[in-house]
Amino acid sequence: MSVSNAPKFSPLTGAIRALAMDAVQQANSGHPGAPMGMAEIAEVLWRRHLRHNPANPHWPDRDRFVMSNGHGSMLVYALLHLTGYELSIDDLKNFRQLHAKTPGHPEFGYTAGIETTTGPLGQGITNAVGFALAEHVLAAEFNKPGHEIVNHHTYVFLGDGCLMEGVSHEACSLAGTLGLGKLIAFWDDNGISIDGHVEGWFTDNTPKRFEAYGWHVVADVDGHDSDAIERALLAAKAVTDKPSLICCKTTIGMGSPNKQGSHDCHGAPLGKDEIAAAREYIGWPHPAFEIPADVYAAWNGKPRGATFEENWNSRFAAYRAAFPAEAAEFDRRVIKRELPANWAATKAAYLASCREKAENIASRKASQNAIAALVPAVPEIFGGSADLAGSNLTFVKGSKGVTRSEGGNYCYYGVREFGMTAIANGLALHGGLVPYTATFLVFSDYARNGIRMAALMKQRQIMVYTHDSIGLGEDGPTHQPVEHIPSLRIIPNLDVWRPADATETAIAWTAAVDRADGPSLLALSRQNLPTVTQNVADDDIRKGGYVLSDCTGEAQVTFIATGSEIKLALDAQAALAGEGIASRVVSMPCTNVFDRQSADYKAAVLGACKKRIAIEAAHPDFWRKYVGLHGAVIGIDRFGESAPAGQLFEMFGFTVANVVKTAKELLS
Amino acid sequence: MSVSNAPKFSPLTGAIRALAMDAVQQANSGHPGAPMGMAEIAEVLWRRHLRHNPANPHWPDRDRFVMSNGHGSMLVYALLHLTGYELSIDDLKNFRQLHAKTPGHPEFGYTAGIETTTGPLGQGITNAVGFALAEHVLAAEFNKPGHEIVNHHTYVFLGDGCLMEGVSHEACSLAGTLGLGKLIAFWDDNGISIDGHVEGWFTDNTPKRFEAYGWHVVADVDGHDSDAIERALLAAKAVTDKPSLICCKTTIGMGSPNKQGSHDCHGAPLGKDEIAAAREYIGWPHPAFEIPADVYAAWNGKPRGATFEENWNSRFAAYRAAFPAEAAEFDRRVIKRELPANWAATKAAYLASCREKAENIASRKASQNAIAALVPAVPEIFGGSADLAGSNLTFVKGSKGVTRSEGGNYCYYGVREFGMTAIANGLALHGGLVPYTATFLVFSDYARNGIRMAALMKQRQIMVYTHDSIGLGEDGPTHQPVEHIPSLRIIPNLDVWRPADATETAIAWTAAVDRADGPSLLALSRQNLPTVTQNVADDDIRKGGYVLSDCTGEAQVTFIATGSEIKLALDAQAALAGEGIASRVVSMPCTNVFDRQSADYKAAVLGACKKRIAIEAAHPDFWRKYVGLHGAVIGIDRFGESAPAGQLFEMFGFTVANVVKTAKELLS
Repeated sequence: MSVSNAPKFSPLTGAIRALAMDAVQQANSGHPGAPMGMAEIAEVLWRRHLRHNPANPHWPDRDRFVMSNGHGSMLVYALLHLTGYELSIDDLKNFRQLHAKTPGHPEFGYTAGIETTTGPLGQGITNAVGFALAEHVLAAEFNKPGHEIVNHHTYVFLGDGCLMEGVSHEACSLAGTLGLGKLIAFWDDNGISIDGHVEGWFTDNTPKRFEAYGWHVVADVDGHDSDAIERALLAAKAVTDKPSLICCKTTIGMGSPNKQGSHDCHGAPLGKDEIAAAREYIGWPHPAFEIPADVYAAWNGKPRGATFEENWNSRFAAYRAAFPAEAAEFDRRVIKRELPANWAATKAAYLASCREKAENIASRKASQNAIAALVPAVPEIFGGSADLAGSNLTFVKGSKGVTRSEGGNYCYYGVREFGMTAIANGLALHGGLVPYTATFLVFSDYARNGIRMAALMKQRQIMVYTHDSIGLGEDGPTHQPVEHIPSLRIIPNLDVWRPADATETAIAWTAAVDRADGPSLLALSRQNLPTVTQNVADDDIRKGGYVLSDCTGEAQVTFIATGSEIKLALDAQAALAGEGIASRVVSMPCTNVFDRQSADYKAAVLGACKKRIAIEAAHPDFWRKYVGLHGAVIGIDRFGESAPAGQLFEMFGFTVANVVKTAKELLS
Repeated sequence: MSVSNAPKFSPLTGAIRALAMDAVQQANSGHPGAPMGMAEIAEVLWRRHLRHNPANPHWPDRDRFVMSNGHGSMLVYALLHLTGYELSIDDLKNFRQLHAKTPGHPEFGYTAGIETTTGPLGQGITNAVGFALAEHVLAAEFNKPGHEIVNHHTYVFLGDGCLMEGVSHEACSLAGTLGLGKLIAFWDDNGISIDGHVEGWFTDNTPKRFEAYGWHVVADVDGHDSDAIERALLAAKAVTDKPSLICCKTTIGMGSPNKQGSHDCHGAPLGKDEIAAAREYIGWPHPAFEIPADVYAAWNGKPRGATFEENWNSRFAAYRAAFPAEAAEFDRRVIKRELPANWAATKAAYLASCREKAENIASRKASQNAIAALVPAVPEIFGGSADLAGSNLTFVKGSKGVTRSEGGNYCYYGVREFGMTAIANGLALHGGLVPYTATFLVFSDYARNGIRMAALMKQRQIMVYTHDSIGLGEDGPTHQPVEHIPSLRIIPNLDVWRPADATETAIAWTAAVDRADGPSLLALSRQNLPTVTQNVADDDIRKGGYVLSDCTGEAQVTFIATGSEIKLALDAQAALAGEGIASRVVSMPCTNVFDRQSADYKAAVLGACKKRIAIEAAHPDFWRKYVGLHGAVIGIDRFGESAPAGQLFEMFGFTVANVVKTAKELLS
């Protein structure tokens, strides 16, 4: 495609385009199209509006920037480098190399200035809704008349792919309902996705769609006209009660004279000849990875950044003087991200009361009790459910739903499991909040990549997933998890708890709050569970697996069970004891935590006996890692049925008789 | 909530309301609200418009009906019973009981007249888009001037929950682009979801949203005014180039004088007193489960149905006379759902050519070759990719993308993994098409509940999931599957293949086409794989696991590997042989199929040697079911990294040296 009216290219955007095309070429893989197509938008936002400080990427009131079309990572790396973050030209030369600060997609924790990991499309904009929601909530909580210590924007770049993904609907619909006015998204409307020109598969009237969500939409902006972008951005900032979408018509790969506007430049290096032609076309005569000093100077964001931060520091000092307690709380929660000073005492008191009551309740109810006890003591705990508050039991005395005009500590997420989970990732990343989310365990499927992203980014999100087995009964196979618990346990860095009673639930909840470097998932029963941990120390439960009930002498068989199946194991133990067969019952509420214990501890818990039987109302294969080929597993390897729970447990072999029979077969 | 202007209730809708509230009460669980709120809509549609034949639920040109808000299952059961399907009053009394035809949610295969399983919100409307797409494609293929043998509507009921779910965006956006004019959806706009009145979490302007998708929208219909519903439906049918959304304002639980309009009647029995009050209120004096003969007569759909089917039979006879070959093909594909007569020969020829070429190619490329060979011979194969045709290699010579105006055998699904998967479930359920779908394996996460629903409904969908490990390289951890293969293997009734070379890929593809009672998933490499199956019979590969390379005498160690790690096992075998250590290599392209073999066969393949080492670039725990506690697994239990693939395999221990070392450790 040749271009008759070549735009005026500036050295400022030239630097972006050159770095993007050169780094992709050097890596021999990557996406030059989006960085080159969004260069003008990026220049206007990052040089003129974004309130950030490259010298301190953690400054709490900085604007957040999210590149939802994360495959265009070189755009962000170029911006971070040019504005003065700790990202050297050598880092850019190492684009997509092992252990580089410049991985193929932006990875949170790898690179100063990257606010979230993006790449799985649609989740960046959803994280951004979480950032903006956190800002809304914390502003309502901390700001005082004349003291706006929480007041920042969240800016997002997104492409057609993000807009096609369902999660963008969930997130943007909710953002509209909540009127998150400091969220401003730029749509890179280049009409190209990997399969080519999008007319064959994506013909939404996107401005109209977003207006239907209650957004403020700035349509028809020329994404290569800096003045037009500037005007659009000012218009967006002027509307404070609605999120804004700025629709920028762009040419993908703009600056590549022979490939721009075509999907050829979307996800592959331009090639040496085309890069040479592009250098000429955009008027960038400098060799690869060389940026003239005056261009660096023009991009340098440190002086502006220092001023932004100093101004905020002054305001925060005034706030501290006027509201010392609130400032100390802000320090703790938002800046240091520490739990309250009395957290250990809160935990201990709650666990003690839980043991004292020894209630025989569903673990979902035990979870609600835990939430009710923790929320007043840990105000950063921020809840929500995907329209199942009354089933997940996530709303407690002290819960207050967030609205457009008011803050709170609870979000009514609506029927939006994936959106909820990725929004909560944004809440956790923002700082100042510890989010818990909730749905039925089976619908973890809908949220699954959001769960994975929480684990990958090491974010503290607590997933309260109830109705954890066929024990939910009549709703039937679409609602009964079978493969879910084992398939979630193998997501790296996710701790999956399936507690057996109220005390195990309380331990799981407090462990999840304690765990600052990753998400925890609680699989909870709909049905009541008896107290079984009367004689067990809290610290044993905290190890994820422990001997719940032992025999005298050597066990002939060892039961390993979780959750609602613990009682079954105990009953089978008693029945076998009556026949002179000695057995041990191991409770394993969290295999992930158990696996991190010392080899000695694990060996001691599992014991010398190799006749092991795992019991769990879920797919059995996972348990072979503990019972081996010589043990047995009582599980479910088919879909459930719609019927009262008792009949289903019977039908699937979760009876004392069947457990006893299995043990005897193993021993014979 | 008391109602001042009580509507006029008719005995026709009274029968629905009574059956719904009585069956929920008898089961002591279930959802009376939606059936009672949608009774008038259902009466207008089912008695006056729906072209179906209760005496033959499989009549091929019947209209399809989908209740996307599947929790309102009693509405469908009431309709099926009243219109004359094989669903007795005793079946209704057994609502939600074990092995009843009336499970808690509508389950495909359990109940005559249920077109798809619904319950997981948003997927019913998405399946319906698949039904309508199938109609569009088959009409384009089979209809001739004057011979419209494919000409039916797809009707959907959906609620707020479906509209909040992201998948509804994906499906409805694509339906708009494709102009599926015979899709007509009724939105049950009752303003209530489980958490209460939806204003706090769902404020979309839904008519505007759907107009933005290119739908025809009939707004502001009184869902309790039969005449208004009738007019809206006629208007919807008159627009043939766009799908229609009819927005019906309803009162949830209408007919329950004290609970209607409140979420109290959404998901719980009304209670005996309220049911008595409702009987009075709606003028339905009959006892529970008793329907007067005149009401039955008025509802009876069999006479209309017989006429519909007879008319179609006449038209099909005329078609057969004029186009005998096409009619035979329609018979085979749509009515009998049989593969072509020459299918066995096609398979054999392709496998032979595949062996002859013995190409060292990526398994994604081998998959493309298979598709190219099968598509001309099996015209019902209908492909697509979620905007990754060029990466998944799913588009072949002979592929033709469907458009608004033309049929084809390929859908450009856009970046909509979940939508694609659930649409393809609709295609498979409709009959006449064998869908394959494609994305990167890691994004199976986005589609996961759609995959599960294919398995639950036993539908033949072939999932072509490429970039199956860290072997994809530089795109990094967000794009590298780790837990996916093992977590997919444990979805009941899903066959997961991870082939090692072009021949194993061809076997996997043909097995997937052969498998009429469930979905198959192919996990395929981005990188080239050498030919390893020169000396193996096709039938061995078809067993899912087999001895690929044995030693003379007893093996001291047995390697079990899949896909790209097979070559590593073979190289380690050779290295160990050089040191006098005998080993066996088992290729296990599909553990699910292998598990279904006889115990003798499985024991013979795995062998007497208990020193087993599984090698797979995925999470290791799964393999303990074959290697036990005394074996070893070389896998990956953490997230990947962004780097060239070779470096990653090295870093994660997928080297001959590490495999040899592991073997020696096991033997020492």
